[in-house]
Amino acid sequence: MTKQISGRNQLTGKITAVQLGDVVAEVTVAVGENLVDAIITRKSAIALDLKVGDIVTALIKSTEVMIMKDMP
Amino acid sequence: MTKQISGRNQLTGKITAVQLGDVVAEVTVAVGENLVDAIITRKSAIALDLKVGDIVTALIKSTEVMIMKDMP
Amino acid sequence: MTKQISGRNQLTGKITAVQLGDVVAEVTVAVGENLVDAIITRKSAIALDLKVGDIVTALIKSTEVMIMKDMP
Amino acid sequence: MTKQISGRNQLTGKITAVQLGDVVAEVTVAVGENLVDAIITRKSAIALDLKVGDIVTALIKSTEVMIMKDMP
Amino acid sequence: MTKQISGRNQLTGKITAVQLGDVVAEVTVAVGENLVDAIITRKSAIALDLKVGDIVTALIKSTEVMIMKDMP
Amino acid sequence: MTKQISGRNQLTGKITAVQLGDVVAEVTVAVGENLVDAIITRKSAIALDLKVGDIVTALIKSTEVMIMKDMP
Repeated sequence: MTKQISGRNQLTGKITAVQLGDVVAEVTVAVGENLVDAIITRKSAIALDLKVGDIVTALIKSTEVMIMKDMP
Repeated sequence: MTKQISGRNQLTGKITAVQLGDVVAEVTVAVGENLVDAIITRKSAIALDLKVGDIVTALIKSTEVMIMKDMP
Repeated sequence: MTKQISGRNQLTGKITAVQLGDVVAEVTVAVGENLVDAIITRKSAIALDLKVGDIVTALIKSTEVMIMKDMP
Repeated sequence: MTKQISGRNQLTGKITAVQLGDVVAEVTVAVGENLVDAIITRKSAIALDLKVGDIVTALIKSTEVMIMKDMP
Repeated sequence: MTKQISGRNQLTGKITAVQLGDVVAEVTVAVGENLVDAIITRKSAIALDLKVGDIVTALIKSTEVMIMKDMP
Repeated sequence: MTKQISGRNQLTGKITAVQLGDVVAEVTVAVGENLVDAIITRKSAIALDLKVGDIVTALIKSTEVMIMKDMP
């Protein structure tokens, strides 16, 4: 059995930074040439034992993505 | 003058598919080895004249990103 | 190995309705005494073969939840 | 007159924890057999005088809900 | 008793357009000098009987707002 | 060349408050007669050098907007 998720954007990479705040935490993931930043709860960051070097997947719902384009 | 945006995740790539629905549209962008899917309004897809081959940037707020990790 | 997700709200229930639109789909899940509605892409609804009676889990990021309270 | 909200997911329960951070706060609500976590502003948590034992409603927009399913 | 909501951004205005799609609907609200667009479910648009001229309030969670600034 | 964004809601106003937290920051913008609150990363607030009196634009995706209406 494999758990499938409807969220279409799943970007795998390596954690480059974890900053724990009082309620939320910021996790930075290197995905290819990009850095992807996530704000999650401090509790989740601790529950998943997130640390620099971990291989993780950033999960983003399609409805959350905007598109920018340079127009002449 | 350059417009700066607080949204920290800006992933540039090439559009591989545009599907116009009655109210919303789905835009797929190839970013490195990943495909990023966006659901935006049909009106915005038309206003930005989005089409296959366009170079665009997917913009994602950090608060919208979850993290998944394989745990032993 | 188990995949762990930072999204803290994971509500398991049974699908009571699936409505496929041209680009997005609406999925309704009975969770305890509540109905939880999700708008996901049509592609994901088909990829996960979602149908009435399926046991699924609704996943919601904590940053997406508002709180309402009756005030005197 | 009653205020109606388009957000279809309204889950009523009792607050089991409130943690105030410097800018945001985490509020946990017991809804049936589930716990629902919300990250809201510290200001709203104070303005609504949220405290353990309060009966509140978690409000979630359908576009914010993902679906997970175990696949064979 | 008044229902209070943690969502800090509540912008009241008059509906200028409603477009019903197969699953979702687009509602446009004139707020001061701005137009605010909302994508909600078709079901909610019908349940609230939304129509041009209605006075409504657009509700937006603070975590969903980005900031743009022109930089020299 | 001008950068166009699919996010349809772009509300321009003047910053009235900036509160830096450990990981996130709250920025308040006066837009017409309304105040719009944004929770962004502390890093973005510093990178954009956001301060009281700055003219900025609040950017909100249409899928993030709910509608409330008083019903008889």
